[in-house]
Amino acid sequence: MTRFRFAPLVAALPASVPFTGPETLERRAGRPFRARLGANENGFGPSPRAVAAMQRAAVEVWKYGDPDSHDLRHALAAHHGVAPENVMVGEGIDGLLGLLVRLTVAPGEAVVTSDGAYPTFNYHVAGFGGRLVKVPYRDDAEDPGALAGAARDQNARLVYLANPDNPMGSWHTAGRIEALLDDLPAASLLVLDEAYAEFAPEEAIPRIDPEDARVIRLRTFSKAYAMAGARVGYAIGPAELIASFDRIRNHFGMNRISQIGAVAALEDADWLAHVRAEVAASRDRLAGIAQSNGLTALPSATNFVALDTHCDGAFAGALLQTLARQGIFARMPGVAPMDRCIRVSCGPEPDMAAFAEALPRALKALS
Amino acid sequence: MTRFRFAPLVAALPASVPFTGPETLERRAGRPFRARLGANENGFGPSPRAVAAMQRAAVEVWKYGDPDSHDLRHALAAHHGVAPENVMVGEGIDGLLGLLVRLTVAPGEAVVTSDGAYPTFNYHVAGFGGRLVKVPYRDDAEDPGALAGAARDQNARLVYLANPDNPMGSWHTAGRIEALLDDLPAASLLVLDEAYAEFAPEEAIPRIDPEDARVIRLRTFSKAYAMAGARVGYAIGPAELIASFDRIRNHFGMNRISQIGAVAALEDADWLAHVRAEVAASRDRLAGIAQSNGLTALPSATNFVALDTHCDGAFAGALLQTLARQGIFARMPGVAPMDRCIRVSCGPEPDMAAFAEALPRALKALS
Repeated sequence: MTRFRFAPLVAALPASVPFTGPETLERRAGRPFRARLGANENGFGPSPRAVAAMQRAAVEVWKYGDPDSHDLRHALAAHHGVAPENVMVGEGIDGLLGLLVRLTVAPGEAVVTSDGAYPTFNYHVAGFGGRLVKVPYRDDAEDPGALAGAARDQNARLVYLANPDNPMGSWHTAGRIEALLDDLPAASLLVLDEAYAEFAPEEAIPRIDPEDARVIRLRTFSKAYAMAGARVGYAIGPAELIASFDRIRNHFGMNRISQIGAVAALEDADWLAHVRAEVAASRDRLAGIAQSNGLTALPSATNFVALDTHCDGAFAGALLQTLARQGIFARMPGVAPMDRCIRVSCGPEPDMAAFAEALPRALKALS
Repeated sequence: MTRFRFAPLVAALPASVPFTGPETLERRAGRPFRARLGANENGFGPSPRAVAAMQRAAVEVWKYGDPDSHDLRHALAAHHGVAPENVMVGEGIDGLLGLLVRLTVAPGEAVVTSDGAYPTFNYHVAGFGGRLVKVPYRDDAEDPGALAGAARDQNARLVYLANPDNPMGSWHTAGRIEALLDDLPAASLLVLDEAYAEFAPEEAIPRIDPEDARVIRLRTFSKAYAMAGARVGYAIGPAELIASFDRIRNHFGMNRISQIGAVAALEDADWLAHVRAEVAASRDRLAGIAQSNGLTALPSATNFVALDTHCDGAFAGALLQTLARQGIFARMPGVAPMDRCIRVSCGPEPDMAAFAEALPRALKALS
C-alpha cells in the first residue's frame, strides 16, 4: 500500500533501473574492477586541453553555466556546418531523448524501435506513456526496412535507430539511412542516435540538411571525446524542433565546467585522431583475444566489440558473471540471438591484457 | 504554421524562458558585467578542498558518474541524520522540482504557490499540465495560512514554500512551518524549498521526521557551497517517495566531477562557516550602501538582500537597467508590491564597492 498518490502515468511505471552502474557492482563485490569495459566508456581519456580547461573552470564553479550554452552551441554549429539554431545542448543523449519523447509523444501513441536496441530510449517512451513497438534485428543489425514498415503500420511518432548500433557495433551506409527517411510516413520523426559516429567509417554518416523535418540527430561527448562523466550531448535538427526544447528543458541544467571542457575538446582535433587510432587498434586487439579463445569478433564501427561465443544467452551471461569475479566489467545484448555475444569496450593495453588473461580462465571455468 | 506535431501538453506551452542568463545579457551589451549580483550566486567561492577534488576528478571524466550517487547520498544522510533511502540527488533543485511535479501532478490538478515566488517551479507545473493557484505574499513574506487555505479549497497536490524566501529574503520560524504541515489537506505534499537554509538562523529550520509523508525538502550546493555551475541538488523525504524518482529520472544524469566535488564541499565545515560569516558581513554592507542612498534593506536570511526603493516596479525596473549599463547585474521581484525592491546578491568587497559606486550614479540618472 502506498502513502503517496502518484500521477497516473507514473503510477503505471515499474520501479526499474535501465542499467546497474559499475560502482554498484563493485560495492556488491566488495572490490573494484580491474578493467572497466562494460559501459563503452573511453579509457584513452579526454583531451589534455579539455582536462586543463575543466581544471581552470573549477574555481569559477560558483557561477551557473550559461543556460544557452552559447559558446558550445556555436562551436558545434561551426564544426558541423549548420546554424546555431540547429543545435541543442543537453545533459547527455539520455537527457535529450527524454525531452524529445516528452515533446512529441502523447500517451498511447506509437514509437518504433528495435528489440534489443538502447533500453534508455524505451525507458523514456514508457515514462511518458508511449506505446513501444519493436521490430527484430536482422543479421545482427537494426533493420531499416522493418522499422519503416512498423512506422507505417502504426503511424509512429518516433522511430529510433542507432547508427552505428549499440550493442552490436554494426552500421548502415549513409545511403541506407537516407532511404529510410524516404520510407517513413509523414507522422514519423527519425531519432538517429549517432553516439558512436566519430568511430565510424565516413560512408556510414549521411549528409542531412539540418532543416530536414524528418530527422533529429543525436551526438555526445561521452564516447569519442571521453567525457561521459561530464554529461554533454547535443541534437542537430530543424530550428523549430530545436527551439521547442526551450519549452520544457531544465534551462540552467548544463554544468558550467562541462560546457567549457566540451568546447576545448572539440578544438583538439589531434587528440580525437589519436583516440580514433587507439580505438581501431584496440578493436583489432579484442578480435585477436577472441580468436585465441574460440570466439569471433563481429565487425564494429564503435569503441566496443561484440564477441560471438557461438553459444546462447545463458552461456554468455554465465561468462560475464565469471569474468566479473575476475575483475572484468563487461556487458551483453539483452535479446536473442544477439545475446550469444558479450560486448567488450575498447581500452588501453593494461585493460586489454587483463581481459586477455581473464577470458581463457573464465571459459575454462565454464567448460 | 508548424511542421511538427507536438504532444498536446507541449503544444499548449509558451516558448518562454524562466530567466535570461547573465551571459546572454553580457552578449547583448557587448561587454561583461563588473559585478555579477543577480542570480544569488556565491562569489565567496567553493571550498578549496572541493576545487582540488574536482580538479583531480577531471582526468577521470571518461567514466560515467555513479548513477546511484552513493557516496554523496551517504554523506548527506550522515550530515542530516537521516537514512540514505531518504535522500535523492539530482541536477540542482530545478531538476528535482521538474521530476517531483511529473511524479505527483496529473494534468488539470491544482498546485498552490505564492504569486511572486520561484518562477521555475511554476514553469515545471505548467510543463506537466498542472493548474497553478497563486496566493499573495503578506508583508513581504510567503503566507502559510493563505497557502494552506488555497490547498484545502483546491485539494492541491503540491504546495510550494521557500523558507527562507526567494526573492524577498524573508523567513518563517520552524514552528510556523510545522503548523503549516498540520493545516494542509491529506492530498497535499509540501515542497519545502530550503535552497538558502545554510544562511538562515537556526530557528528557521524545522526538525522534520524524514518519513513524514506530508513534506519533501529541497537543498542545494549552488548557494552556501558556491557550486551553482556543478548542478547538485538533493531532496530529503520519505523513502517511498524518494525511491519513486528512480521511475523517471535520468539515471546517468549526475556529473561525476560534481558528485566528487560535493562530497568534498560537505566535509569542509570550516569553509562553510567562513562563507556564512562573509555573507552576513556582506548583508550588512549592502544595508549600509542602501541606507546611504535612501533605500532600505529588508531583513534577509539568505545570501541576497531585497532593497526597498520606496517607489514602484517601474522605478525599480528602470534602476536595474541603469545599473546594468554601469556593469552591475541584479534582479528584482516580479510582482507588486514586492517589485518596489531590487534584489542584490552578497559578494566579495570588489563587487560591493562596484555596487556602492554605481548605485548613487544610477539613482541620480533616474532623478
